[in-house]
Amino acid sequence: MSRAYNFSAGPATLPEAVLLQAQAELLEWRGVGASIVELSHRGPEFMQVAAEAEADLRTLMSIPDDYAVLFLQGGATVQQALIALNFAAPGQRADYIVTGHWGKTALKQVLPYVAANVAANGEAGGFRDIPARASWQLSDDAAYVHYTANETIHGVEFRSASGGDIPEVGDVPLIADFSSSIVSEPLDVSRFGVIYGGAQKNLGPVGVSVVIVRRELLERAGQPRAEIFNYAAHVRGESMLNTPPTWNWYLAGLVFKWMLAEGGVTEFARRNARKSKLLYDVIDGSGGFYRNEVAVAVRSRMNVPFFLCDDALDKPFLAEAKEAGLISLKGHRALGGMRASIYNAMPEEGVQALAAFMRSFQQRHG
Amino acid sequence: MSRAYNFSAGPATLPEAVLLQAQAELLEWRGVGASIVELSHRGPEFMQVAAEAEADLRTLMSIPDDYAVLFLQGGATVQQALIALNFAAPGQRADYIVTGHWGKTALKQVLPYVAANVAANGEAGGFRDIPARASWQLSDDAAYVHYTANETIHGVEFRSASGGDIPEVGDVPLIADFSSSIVSEPLDVSRFGVIYGGAQKNLGPVGVSVVIVRRELLERAGQPRAEIFNYAAHVRGESMLNTPPTWNWYLAGLVFKWMLAEGGVTEFARRNARKSKLLYDVIDGSGGFYRNEVAVAVRSRMNVPFFLCDDALDKPFLAEAKEAGLISLKGHRALGGMRASIYNAMPEEGVQALAAFMRSFQQRHG
Repeated sequence: MSRAYNFSAGPATLPEAVLLQAQAELLEWRGVGASIVELSHRGPEFMQVAAEAEADLRTLMSIPDDYAVLFLQGGATVQQALIALNFAAPGQRADYIVTGHWGKTALKQVLPYVAANVAANGEAGGFRDIPARASWQLSDDAAYVHYTANETIHGVEFRSASGGDIPEVGDVPLIADFSSSIVSEPLDVSRFGVIYGGAQKNLGPVGVSVVIVRRELLERAGQPRAEIFNYAAHVRGESMLNTPPTWNWYLAGLVFKWMLAEGGVTEFARRNARKSKLLYDVIDGSGGFYRNEVAVAVRSRMNVPFFLCDDALDKPFLAEAKEAGLISLKGHRALGGMRASIYNAMPEEGVQALAAFMRSFQQRHG
Repeated sequence: MSRAYNFSAGPATLPEAVLLQAQAELLEWRGVGASIVELSHRGPEFMQVAAEAEADLRTLMSIPDDYAVLFLQGGATVQQALIALNFAAPGQRADYIVTGHWGKTALKQVLPYVAANVAANGEAGGFRDIPARASWQLSDDAAYVHYTANETIHGVEFRSASGGDIPEVGDVPLIADFSSSIVSEPLDVSRFGVIYGGAQKNLGPVGVSVVIVRRELLERAGQPRAEIFNYAAHVRGESMLNTPPTWNWYLAGLVFKWMLAEGGVTEFARRNARKSKLLYDVIDGSGGFYRNEVAVAVRSRMNVPFFLCDDALDKPFLAEAKEAGLISLKGHRALGGMRASIYNAMPEEGVQALAAFMRSFQQRHG
């Protein structure tokens, strides 16, 4: 087949224009006689790529100057461990809001390092809603409060455009895993102590993570740790304490330029609202043939999980979708069913094609 | 220019055949409708890529079955910290052999975790030789002995083909940073507890690291740590505890297939011996115009650092080399001078071109 519409949850689809540019430049980058993946990270060529990527991300997200931006290896999971090591004293209390699988993962990583207080947990309700802010049992001496902005498996999202759903937690630094919803709509970065995420959903390629950290937090002593686990050292070393994942960083930079050219986060917020509404409308209008059980107010705009009324239809659904050029729709093994991940790089045409396919599949099998 | 001969120390030159294949497949991988960089790491396509890469590396290096092979993020520096966390009890003694810049880095990472004993240190001699084995002050209760097989900056290498220069350390596990000389010649893996390295020199692309670990070592309790810092958990999770750097892993796999097709490590050992001899012969035959001060028996086959007789010639040397299509020859800022890195992917023609250029430059400026 030619290129399909790929609804993978991450690694996820990339803008075709970005892939075409990366392809054209793969053997030789801008007349320097080598691929960007073959050049020293400390040479003038890559230093420029790195600086442009940071500047473009700062523009995209309106990141204030008192925040440092890091491009690191390890994925969100490594950052989850490093957050405790860098921002909490040994055994200090830290508050965790658990609204899905990834919130549980974040909590698990820090158990050796902090006294984790699960201040709110949606698991009893199957992670179909976010516990009301008034019910959260926050500590008054927490090092920080951690939450997961968007849960890719359960399809539950704290919405950020209005600022209304960024939790108010007083003077305690708010730390959020934004792996799967970063740059999908405007966000007031100044509300956060740390925003972090793996890049493989909205930011571009797998293999590089972004950490945006309020500089004053870097003065915390944290816990005994290797220099390579020290965020302040990474800031001093401009994310090059050791050899960074240059190609992945470069590809993320191309995605940033593409997003800016397309109109930035305000435009993507509009597209993402339209895209997710299209799918939820098909599901809600299917008379129960398709089912999404998440509370409407917290439904994710990035990941739309849904079930068919009969499990026996899962296989034909996936097979016929693939025939129609719609791939990677199988749900996460933890939940089953289907899932359509529709990050910034998924064009509206792709979502329209999926919506049309879902209606047609229902007509044929309903 | 078109593609030059690129002597970068890492990220380093890649086989052109590998880049061409990656370029051809970048928008769509084997008819699946998406790039390999856009596919789920848990899907059948990438799982096959991952399994083939491991199998090919096992073949290339004749890795025994009682060794696990991991493909991880973080680079060698992160592995250096994890080695202490996984294989030493808190504050336990560990022996370090320091023969250059990277040995010092390895030592620095573990100071928060172990009682490091520097059993041998070549720094007083400017890292121009490896302290004789008889002079090493090994502990009798060390958790492990660590050394750096090849020092890319100082150009000092423990040779491995004959087995003679793998240090004999009794029953204590030997752990070695092989970032810059892995798969450059045959190696008896069974002599080691752990072999690790970043991939961006001989194994291929930056952004993925390889850790080869004797399985019985995974039973050690180590130190309190997050699951994501636990090698045993990574082995159980088949290097997919979290989203791995799929494209980098894929590219490494293409390099492994290329190396096997070219004749494997025995063939590369022959080529690397010829390549390094060519450059050392030019240097030693230059009557002092070029200078390499490393003891002949431990000169690196991978990185040939050299100085010109007059610093004022450095700039013209680099400028004329670039004109001749020979790039990235500037030495590391810690040492100055020049450096030619000539890993597996550097063709013999490239080294011949450099040798000819060096002779011609001497004629014109000597």
